Amino acid sequence: MDPLSREHAAARDASDPLGGFRARFVTDDPQRIYLDGNSLGRLPVATRDRLAALVSEWGERLVSGWSEWIDAPVHVGDMLATGVLGAQPGEVIVSDSTTVNFYKLCAAVLEGRPGALVTDEGNFPTDRYVLQGLAAAHGRELRLVGDHGDVQDACARRDVALVALSHVAYRSGALADLPGITSAVRAAGAEMVWDLSHSVGAVPIGLRAAGVELAVGCTYKYLNAGPGAPAFLYVARERQAGLRSPIWGWFGQREQFAMERPYDPEPGIRRFLAGTPPILDLAAVEEGARLTVEAGVEAIREKSVAQTELIVALHDATLAPLGFSLGSPRDPALRGSHVSLRHPEAWPICRALIERADVVCDFRGPDSIRLGVAPLYTRYADVWDAVDRLRELVAHGEQRLVDAEPGRVT
Amino acid sequence: MDPLSREHAAARDASDPLGGFRARFVTDDPQRIYLDGNSLGRLPVATRDRLAALVSEWGERLVSGWSEWIDAPVHVGDMLATGVLGAQPGEVIVSDSTTVNFYKLCAAVLEGRPGALVTDEGNFPTDRYVLQGLAAAHGRELRLVGDHGDVQDACARRDVALVALSHVAYRSGALADLPGITSAVRAAGAEMVWDLSHSVGAVPIGLRAAGVELAVGCTYKYLNAGPGAPAFLYVARERQAGLRSPIWGWFGQREQFAMERPYDPEPGIRRFLAGTPPILDLAAVEEGARLTVEAGVEAIREKSVAQTELIVALHDATLAPLGFSLGSPRDPALRGSHVSLRHPEAWPICRALIERADVVCDFRGPDSIRLGVAPLYTRYADVWDAVDRLRELVAHGEQRLVDAEPGRVT
Repeated sequence: MDPLSREHAAARDASDPLGGFRARFVTDDPQRIYLDGNSLGRLPVATRDRLAALVSEWGERLVSGWSEWIDAPVHVGDMLATGVLGAQPGEVIVSDSTTVNFYKLCAAVLEGRPGALVTDEGNFPTDRYVLQGLAAAHGRELRLVGDHGDVQDACARRDVALVALSHVAYRSGALADLPGITSAVRAAGAEMVWDLSHSVGAVPIGLRAAGVELAVGCTYKYLNAGPGAPAFLYVARERQAGLRSPIWGWFGQREQFAMERPYDPEPGIRRFLAGTPPILDLAAVEEGARLTVEAGVEAIREKSVAQTELIVALHDATLAPLGFSLGSPRDPALRGSHVSLRHPEAWPICRALIERADVVCDFRGPDSIRLGVAPLYTRYADVWDAVDRLRELVAHGEQRLVDAEPGRVT
Repeated sequence: MDPLSREHAAARDASDPLGGFRARFVTDDPQRIYLDGNSLGRLPVATRDRLAALVSEWGERLVSGWSEWIDAPVHVGDMLATGVLGAQPGEVIVSDSTTVNFYKLCAAVLEGRPGALVTDEGNFPTDRYVLQGLAAAHGRELRLVGDHGDVQDACARRDVALVALSHVAYRSGALADLPGITSAVRAAGAEMVWDLSHSVGAVPIGLRAAGVELAVGCTYKYLNAGPGAPAFLYVARERQAGLRSPIWGWFGQREQFAMERPYDPEPGIRRFLAGTPPILDLAAVEEGARLTVEAGVEAIREKSVAQTELIVALHDATLAPLGFSLGSPRDPALRGSHVSLRHPEAWPICRALIERADVVCDFRGPDSIRLGVAPLYTRYADVWDAVDRLRELVAHGEQRLVDAEPGRVT
């Protein structure tokens, strides 16, 4: 069978060990092909039920519910730690946004540590903005490198306090060398903070094995926790007592309800909590993460690689002749779970693909269309059909038929 | 009719103009009297339905839902601004926790402004902790005053950068003079940040009329938005462009999706946003706040005063002889929507009241039981019954029958 045929794709679905997971998500849209799980994941059926139950629990238990809810940030964090992140219980909390958590960790390591801040100019905007703000507040230099390969050079003078990078680049999908960069940065005497937003749930992340000490990440992408669900924050146990969040909040306080005392943070990971955690959202994180844990990140990664390889192969065969070029690394070992396709008309093509072909992708400036595969619910046939619809659309110049005013895309 | 009789209480319920609102909440617990809405409000029926609909919307619309969701922090903020806070549209956002929002505003005003920080030693712990952290980070003095009356003295030397106080004190329920203190602090050349957590939705707050420029507050108490629902942040329009959040996040960025540029914050209130806002929770804030707006804060306040007056009168008549004393101001004009009753055995009494008498109150150290009235669902008869059960319990010494290990209370 032609490995680039639709029949072959369908046959792979038929024998896919993860095939059964699709039914665990709400997919009431048979025509639509959703390749934007790297932006917002689908709704797990269990989440719908759990949220309804938890809303009722609020109504019934009222304030007494807090006796259990109060542990949710650590409890859900433990599930992520052991099932997804390759960390230990007590090393991860879930609460606040990725931006706020990234701010907490970066500010914590800058305290009492002089030197520059380093990131790459293609890093996700909110990370760059936070670093820019911290550099301004602390009177530090922010050094922007062209790509991850330049990080060692940037640290060579040993005048760097902090390097912060994304594990998977949001635009190109490039996958960074987590242990290699971490070890080089630490060897240069700097702290390393990783943003795992675009890898968590799709790429195996052995935080402890890689020597990573500090990381944050998002739960509403491959972990399917819903729009604006809270983020996670990881601090290796041996670093916890020595670092302090800049936001001294009551959920980080030792003996929180002995309210008369001055601030004295918990010795463990709770010290990075700030205000009251969002209980409904934490349940959604738990249900979303549970599916990933059940499937296993290794199995997810295997399917993800096969699917992005299929996109690359179909691109080479059918899209490159139409003016597309690959915006992601060709080596799957260097790529996360989405593929960027570059085209001079990327923006109207993206609009047309969504509006006229019912393939949900997204655009990232200046010229990239991202196709993300989420192996828990993306089928091989979806990948084939999406690229085929894209090919047909561009072959017919349909991107010139849409009203493609630059607008909001998330 | 004896004004302290149960008949009188029941008669007031029968003619209560807000009486119909109780049916808008889930109250499947006929025996239970819930006087802890000042900690966590009840579940509105509309919220249950709205959350179910919004979860479905996530499942159906997926990433395209962001075209509307993205405005929720401002949209829900506008409802609070105009319907609850006495502010203007574009002056309030809803996102992040009270702690994080309080941190943002306090850090923003300290930037480039030397001087001490002032708060009262009875202020809510998370506020004190945040101020303590900022004082440490900026090398400033944190001056703790005994009560609000001492604030002017603390500012007398004109060496104060920031005063931060709670509008209603979490323990005593004391209601601060919002316009008077704001104007005195401003006259002393300092910035004033208010925490409205324990007043919003229960006490009329004319922010603009009072000359307040900076405030934060909680939505899960009298606004009934659910456990850990996001908080609000208010900045008077004329102050917005001149203040900058310490957390430079992508939701505060002008033209957020032009992702290539350096940080350049929105001129308006959005600049105080940080990361991706929690969409489910924002819907819960909207539904909760809608009930308060519909009822009107003035009508809520009128009933709240009548109910706390009833608690005080019943205390004087039936509880004071049992060793209770009033921990809240006697003048209702100086009191929020909860009453603190002090007793040497407050902790076991509180446990017994919950466990043996099904009256939900809470304990605040060292010796206070808080009884909070939430006029949208608290009945006069509830107030009467609660005090009667409390009286009977203490008269029989039942507090000595509970296992009252000091534990968690929220």
